[in-house]
Amino acid sequence: MTTAPGSTRDAIVSAALELFRERGFDGTTMRAVADRAGVSVGNAYYYFSSKDELVQGFYDQLVAEHRALALPELTGHADLADRLRIALNAWITAAEPYREFAGRFFAVAAQPGNPLSPFSPDSGPARAAAVDLYREVLSGARVDPDPELARELPELLWLQHLGIVLFWVHDTSADAARTRLLVDRTVPIVARLVRLSRLPVLRPLGRQVVDLVRLLKG
Amino acid sequence: MTTAPGSTRDAIVSAALELFRERGFDGTTMRAVADRAGVSVGNAYYYFSSKDELVQGFYDQLVAEHRALALPELTGHADLADRLRIALNAWITAAEPYREFAGRFFAVAAQPGNPLSPFSPDSGPARAAAVDLYREVLSGARVDPDPELARELPELLWLQHLGIVLFWVHDTSADAARTRLLVDRTVPIVARLVRLSRLPVLRPLGRQVVDLVRLLKG
Repeated sequence: MTTAPGSTRDAIVSAALELFRERGFDGTTMRAVADRAGVSVGNAYYYFSSKDELVQGFYDQLVAEHRALALPELTGHADLADRLRIALNAWITAAEPYREFAGRFFAVAAQPGNPLSPFSPDSGPARAAAVDLYREVLSGARVDPDPELARELPELLWLQHLGIVLFWVHDTSADAARTRLLVDRTVPIVARLVRLSRLPVLRPLGRQVVDLVRLLKG
Repeated sequence: MTTAPGSTRDAIVSAALELFRERGFDGTTMRAVADRAGVSVGNAYYYFSSKDELVQGFYDQLVAEHRALALPELTGHADLADRLRIALNAWITAAEPYREFAGRFFAVAAQPGNPLSPFSPDSGPARAAAVDLYREVLSGARVDPDPELARELPELLWLQHLGIVLFWVHDTSADAARTRLLVDRTVPIVARLVRLSRLPVLRPLGRQVVDLVRLLKG
């Protein structure tokens, strides 16, 4: 397979994903990836210095696909629960073809200190793009949360997203039906909490959550 | 090392933990475990049919140590946040000697379909004992949550516990200081939510959470 220069990077990631599926992560060499992508080994190493970086490339690609799928669907929806449901279901749809081995990658990524962890410096760009999508989810929604809480909400919604991903990894139901059900049940709870965050009785709670998020980031 | 018959099981688990630390999980054989515990290989297999079952034995032992440490400390405390803090910090203390390789086990256990998953049928007894501890945390606390929510609260608090464990696995700070800080910041939030769950404005939220927990269990 030959590719236009602009998409060499994508072609290498796609070839790697095919091979990971066929032979597993350990059974896949950079040489095999280069061959499948129709590039030289040197060229493959120019883009990715290791197989771990290829998986990072897969994350970047998945985040990009997620955004591309979610953003147009958000148009015309102003209800926060609707917008959250759209964003989360778009991720499930984007990730579905990779469920089998994405589950394995995410389990490896959960190992302490792994550069593939969603919290690692290496995952910074993918994390920023994912958090940014939740910033868009919020900015188009008819909500008026407590201002202190509002600043940390994109990160909080991304943490909720990670919780859903964790469930999805373990979900063996057809078309991830159970994960979609979980999304359906979770988004009204989150939207309600955001809406109530301005109530005097709940404002201290919001501030405690803000402190917690800042602690986790710091 | 020889042991009284009653503690043969514990001696095998302890020997296995020593060897996992020294040689890693893959480098440890049942024969080596039996030798270290001073029992015959047949005897070791009588108690544990595989290394996976040994790890399950480790979980059971950790839950038992956690209960033994937490329950006496709870005496005399009626504030839910205090009781939660005591229970969670007792777990961190009980688990501290195992942090290095417990982290690895928990990452493996997070693999889809793994029998060591906290949600697997094999983990049933350890899970029941852990949930039961949170039932005790609640029953001794001066709280009066929404009755529907109250039924699912032990499970909810156990899910919170799992979230803390997930953080702890990634925590490299001395004496798990960051995890203890997370506990300090999280328990007032949870205690406040439980206290507020009776408010009319929050009752629908509580019911939604109850539905969600039942969905996850079902």
